[in-house]
Amino acid sequence: MIKVIVDIHGGDKSPKELLPGVIKAIDNNLDLEVVVAGNEDIIKDYLKEVNYQDDRLTILSCSQEVTNNDSPTAILKEKKDSSLVKGMKELSTSDASGIVSCGSTGAVLASAMFILGRINRCRPSLAATLPNVKGKLTILLDCGANVDCKEEHLMGFATMGSVLSKATGVDNPRIGLLNVGVEEKKGNELTKNVHNLMKESTLNFVGNIEASSVLDGNVDVIVTDGFPGNVVLKNIEGVAKTLIGEMVMKMKTSNDPLEQQVIGNLVGYFMSKYDFNSQGGGILLGVNKIVVKGHGAANADTIYSTINMVYRLANNKMIEQMKELL
Amino acid sequence: MIKVIVDIHGGDKSPKELLPGVIKAIDNNLDLEVVVAGNEDIIKDYLKEVNYQDDRLTILSCSQEVTNNDSPTAILKEKKDSSLVKGMKELSTSDASGIVSCGSTGAVLASAMFILGRINRCRPSLAATLPNVKGKLTILLDCGANVDCKEEHLMGFATMGSVLSKATGVDNPRIGLLNVGVEEKKGNELTKNVHNLMKESTLNFVGNIEASSVLDGNVDVIVTDGFPGNVVLKNIEGVAKTLIGEMVMKMKTSNDPLEQQVIGNLVGYFMSKYDFNSQGGGILLGVNKIVVKGHGAANADTIYSTINMVYRLANNKMIEQMKELL
Repeated sequence: MIKVIVDIHGGDKSPKELLPGVIKAIDNNLDLEVVVAGNEDIIKDYLKEVNYQDDRLTILSCSQEVTNNDSPTAILKEKKDSSLVKGMKELSTSDASGIVSCGSTGAVLASAMFILGRINRCRPSLAATLPNVKGKLTILLDCGANVDCKEEHLMGFATMGSVLSKATGVDNPRIGLLNVGVEEKKGNELTKNVHNLMKESTLNFVGNIEASSVLDGNVDVIVTDGFPGNVVLKNIEGVAKTLIGEMVMKMKTSNDPLEQQVIGNLVGYFMSKYDFNSQGGGILLGVNKIVVKGHGAANADTIYSTINMVYRLANNKMIEQMKELL
Repeated sequence: MIKVIVDIHGGDKSPKELLPGVIKAIDNNLDLEVVVAGNEDIIKDYLKEVNYQDDRLTILSCSQEVTNNDSPTAILKEKKDSSLVKGMKELSTSDASGIVSCGSTGAVLASAMFILGRINRCRPSLAATLPNVKGKLTILLDCGANVDCKEEHLMGFATMGSVLSKATGVDNPRIGLLNVGVEEKKGNELTKNVHNLMKESTLNFVGNIEASSVLDGNVDVIVTDGFPGNVVLKNIEGVAKTLIGEMVMKMKTSNDPLEQQVIGNLVGYFMSKYDFNSQGGGILLGVNKIVVKGHGAANADTIYSTINMVYRLANNKMIEQMKELL
């Protein structure tokens, strides 16, 4: 049995909109147990409404919610009975493997670091799983948990990214370093130094990668300081949203039903492929359990895919390997 | 009369493919003079071929070309008779206002800085003009000429970006700071400090801007260190190329002529709007004359629009204003 905690509050959508994702995950994985942390009445009402009952879905009753307005550090004292903090404590003290939360990134990071603790005093990092043109996932880290990084931090991210990539099924993950040019001598002080360290390491380092090639699928892991990492992540979303938005406008202003249909199909395709909402979400690496952070706008599909992500990483013993290598 | 030098070598395309852009620019601007720097025989052959003659097109005969393999600093000694170096010298010693080159960025930057000289010992910066969703241009700087920037460099970029934006027709340019969050306290050490300095300055500073909003057109100038700036620029290109590439694939694999036509129209629209090839190109700011760097893959349209850019900036006295404020 693999046990996953789901913080059912914190995102934009209500528990009733997210619970179908939990039920789907349980129905699809026979050795999965889910503990839903949240308002017991709301959860029970919903389960009664859809007439769902399974011993593998249990409720961790919580009376509080963490919101985007809460200070990430204050919640540990002031919101002890929130679905996030209580869920994280349950994760820490039980045999559960991981947690899924769509709450504010700062709150998820702070509660995970304080309650779960870091592996060997490493610098934890937030990794994104990006869908690439080859239909696989490219891992990008750090995505904004650490700005002002030093060389050793990026080396740690490379190790963590490599372990994560292996746990998602990649044999010998290719590591790339985000840089302003592919040439070895290019970069700022940090990336020039890290390039040399990576070359000398046992990592499967394939060299620098430019931001134009992030989605090409030629590397499995892209390592970067959290400032440019966050810039890449948000920029991909922004550009995709801009282009998709222009297509939607063209569709709406068209008078031709056939044209509308063709564009509508394209929009649907891009939304499902490049809308990060339906993808795996961010993964916090370097803490003692699996923590997956869904997008704030997460829906039932996101909950389903993030639970599956925790399940898969737990099955593939990601944390055990992380502890060995860090 | 406004005189513009065009380095007709250095890009991927031949002089014959680029010269139509020069001719179009001259024909469209009655007070424009163009000096084409390059191989005299090739240029003359082409002009004879199309039977073109105008006193406002003159040739600066050069026997060498700068290639991507040349060291940017070595060209000053070893390629003195190249279209880039000789063109830059002509710009420096004549009444010409600016130069257009599609050569390697490093070579253009190095030759401009050494031959034209910096304005008041400032740190020159490479600015990109990005087409935004509102149909205007957003200026992003620095785009990679300066990595490892300090606070004073970013403040200089803000001033230069503001002057450039004014010279393109914006009244009171809104300045944004690229950051990992819109909140004032977000960022790395550099952006936190610069945020405070900008707030206290006379700039029209409107706050932090996230990479997801770069194309939204809510600011006129985005200021950043050259590392994340280069990352944003290349990432926009990469994501746009990825999505357009997927559309082209769908078009090619479709059996329905109507569907092919609708997708083809969309591809054409996005290519003309977001393909930076047909846009203004990068502008090197902080040197004593106007330097516009076209994309390596530049075509005649790029040459036309980059010459127009120099013409417009010269007409609006950009260099004079830059000298006053730097």
